[in-house]
Amino acid sequence: MAEVKQEGITVKKSENFSEWYTQVVQKAELADYGPVQGTIAIRETAYAVWEKIQNVFDEKIKKTGHKNAYFPLLIPENFLKKEAEHFKGFVPEVFWVTHTGENKLGERLAIRPTSETIINTFYSKWIRSWRDLPVLLNQWCNILRGEIKSTKPFIRTSEFLWQEGHTAHATEEEAEKEMLYILDEYKDLVENYLAVPVLTGKKSEMEKFAGAKTTTTMEALMPDGKALQAGTSHSLGQNFSRAFEIKFLDKNGKQQHVWTTSWGISTRLIGAVVMTHGDDKGLILPPKVAPVQVVIVPIFYKAEEKKKILKKAEELVEKLKENGISVFIDDREGYTPGWKFNEWEMKGIPMRIEIGPKDVKNKQVVIVRRDNFKKTFVKEMEVLKNVGKVLDEIQKNLFVKAKKFLSESTTTAKDYQEFKKTLERKGGLLRACWCGEQHCEEQVKLETGATIRIVPFKKEKIFGKCVYCGKEAKEVVYFAKAY
Amino acid sequence: MAEVKQEGITVKKSENFSEWYTQVVQKAELADYGPVQGTIAIRETAYAVWEKIQNVFDEKIKKTGHKNAYFPLLIPENFLKKEAEHFKGFVPEVFWVTHTGENKLGERLAIRPTSETIINTFYSKWIRSWRDLPVLLNQWCNILRGEIKSTKPFIRTSEFLWQEGHTAHATEEEAEKEMLYILDEYKDLVENYLAVPVLTGKKSEMEKFAGAKTTTTMEALMPDGKALQAGTSHSLGQNFSRAFEIKFLDKNGKQQHVWTTSWGISTRLIGAVVMTHGDDKGLILPPKVAPVQVVIVPIFYKAEEKKKILKKAEELVEKLKENGISVFIDDREGYTPGWKFNEWEMKGIPMRIEIGPKDVKNKQVVIVRRDNFKKTFVKEMEVLKNVGKVLDEIQKNLFVKAKKFLSESTTTAKDYQEFKKTLERKGGLLRACWCGEQHCEEQVKLETGATIRIVPFKKEKIFGKCVYCGKEAKEVVYFAKAY
Repeated sequence: MAEVKQEGITVKKSENFSEWYTQVVQKAELADYGPVQGTIAIRETAYAVWEKIQNVFDEKIKKTGHKNAYFPLLIPENFLKKEAEHFKGFVPEVFWVTHTGENKLGERLAIRPTSETIINTFYSKWIRSWRDLPVLLNQWCNILRGEIKSTKPFIRTSEFLWQEGHTAHATEEEAEKEMLYILDEYKDLVENYLAVPVLTGKKSEMEKFAGAKTTTTMEALMPDGKALQAGTSHSLGQNFSRAFEIKFLDKNGKQQHVWTTSWGISTRLIGAVVMTHGDDKGLILPPKVAPVQVVIVPIFYKAEEKKKILKKAEELVEKLKENGISVFIDDREGYTPGWKFNEWEMKGIPMRIEIGPKDVKNKQVVIVRRDNFKKTFVKEMEVLKNVGKVLDEIQKNLFVKAKKFLSESTTTAKDYQEFKKTLERKGGLLRACWCGEQHCEEQVKLETGATIRIVPFKKEKIFGKCVYCGKEAKEVVYFAKAY
Repeated sequence: MAEVKQEGITVKKSENFSEWYTQVVQKAELADYGPVQGTIAIRETAYAVWEKIQNVFDEKIKKTGHKNAYFPLLIPENFLKKEAEHFKGFVPEVFWVTHTGENKLGERLAIRPTSETIINTFYSKWIRSWRDLPVLLNQWCNILRGEIKSTKPFIRTSEFLWQEGHTAHATEEEAEKEMLYILDEYKDLVENYLAVPVLTGKKSEMEKFAGAKTTTTMEALMPDGKALQAGTSHSLGQNFSRAFEIKFLDKNGKQQHVWTTSWGISTRLIGAVVMTHGDDKGLILPPKVAPVQVVIVPIFYKAEEKKKILKKAEELVEKLKENGISVFIDDREGYTPGWKFNEWEMKGIPMRIEIGPKDVKNKQVVIVRRDNFKKTFVKEMEVLKNVGKVLDEIQKNLFVKAKKFLSESTTTAKDYQEFKKTLERKGGLLRACWCGEQHCEEQVKLETGATIRIVPFKKEKIFGKCVYCGKEAKEVVYFAKAY
């Protein structure tokens, strides 16, 4: 009966993770490759997940007095250069504009790789007095960084969408508080909406943001054992306020430099969702961020059944919608129910409701969960209560499963032998002691590809010598290979 | 008592409109100039108006099956060239990227001046069968066009934010219907939310979008007598589907090219709001798009009054918020009430509520309208009802006033003498007969600066000869000088 060829995911997630990811992204129509290396089109389902992320996070930060604004995409080269570390960190990947129309520009312009430099230029004009502080602005925008090797849709692309918050404060304490507050909100968003568990902590000096005083981060662990930096929140000290001369008159009439922060999460989170929850059939979207939570598939073989079943389905849609559940009926002709099941399983809709002739007769429907394929017959009277409950269960189950994986993939490595062996065998997070010297960190990276993902906020008890040099350890840190 | 210097708008709107606009934009903190010619930062109040516009329009189009997506910023030059008219129209203002980091690119990349070419490239991969149609996508994004002369914040900038809808259909009728549907929604948004009246109609061949078959437009009239194109909706025929080979298998198994549309509104609308409604005191925001609708200014001279008054104010805030009215209390110290009145008048908050010691005693508040400064004493019991009603009245009054101006500024010109005299004396829209020849249109533009803004959808009755050449007229059209 189906006229249109259907091709599902042809590799197992456990066997070829990279190819599996590529197939899910393309076949679930989340993204498609653009003509310029490393660029993608973010298709409607993925974009709708991004809109959910935006709504949740936007509401959070607006409640605490943050506001959105928009700053220019193009940054003159000399602005970028004002903070030396920052420039060094970003310049290799900047896209440079050199002409408008046929006119060569006097100075080349960077397409923003991040906006500290341009935003701080404005802040230096806007901030005059302690009355103007804090400044709590955020922007939702596109960012460009020329990625040359191993681009991957959502995870690493030359253009991506993000939010970048930029705040200015009268004291360092306030700036640090802001940095930590945002990291907490990030964690809440990612764990409680995207169902992706994360570890939070600081970055080492080597891994911190170019120009930051302190970088805090949340790190997720993907099923292939690689860590994914899911969001960062920086305290920039007075590095940028000195470079850009952002001064204010304090309450005692003294000129002071402000203390700034910046923080961002991006469309990379969509990649984290795909990787974390998907299975061999395709995408699985957590109900809280799924643009469609329920698909109803009517099943009929004779024309006279069709009318009755569709009427039932429409009544159910009304009821679910009234209760804030997003749902649609797949009543397309020319496709078998089985074809439709596969289609929506691949596309990750969290729940399917089937209504057939028998179900109408028995005043029931069939509910099928996307996360574990459990099938339940539910009496019509109880559908509404049941759907809400099961969606909550799916949300919870996805998180618990991922959390279990994260715990099981965290290994304490007592020495370098064990460290390397574990890394090779299963990857994951390696809990190890570290002397605090950058040399050891660099050597580990060079020899194994693993970097320090997290320095815990709360010092953990030292259980041995530095994993690399064997000298006195100063910290317990978490290493991993990362995207 | 006030510690901080306050400077209001120093020119009259009627005396130096251009300078007045610049001051309002800067002093009401709507925008500030960026380092690159023609770029601006969109500050929080203006951005909040943009968010309101986004919410209203997004809801409209989602109800009719449109979805949001995101397409790459960078477009290889050869893509732009595929539709010849389009390329010719946009190439003089394109920002070109030639390098990433230190590497010269093989082909230069355009920063999107509009996205027909890149989006249609994807559509040619995604559309195969009639089952895939219609495709109804929209994106909210930034657009860059190098504007060399007479840039003006919001009105004409080298970078702006917009939405661009791009749809593909099986038939031309469907595409035209889409084009007109969108134009209707634009008109509803602009008139009923921004309180800016518009005329709608078609563009002449000369004025239409580069690559379009038909361009429809809505045109507003600014207080200086110049027209402002406030949004356009195009039927692109098969121009782009042929250039980009977007074909589908129809129900009869035949390959056909799709019919496409595109349509956009931008942050220019913020400029239209500022120009249309503002007065000598500054900005006036229509209540439906004002981020803050009501400011409460407590008035007290003694410490013991303060507590009582603030308590009243807070009770009122609760009540208003519960009813969906956005409100805040300006309880800053170190500023006089008068200073605060000026501040919020300049920043355009539609309504002010004053609460002083007498008001507390008399169980009343004072309501002051921003649009006409009318002051009303309102009993506490009736505040809620009253505030809602008065906000509605302000919204309506702003529209009625602007609509009256639009009518009064539309002049029927019987001959070229009258045409030129009226244009010089007061500008506005000139209703004139036209032979339909591009030569006449070009000459009028050359000699007077006026262009055909609207060819009415419904032919108006011809009342004379062509305003320029004096030959037989084919249409009644509306000319104006325009931004």
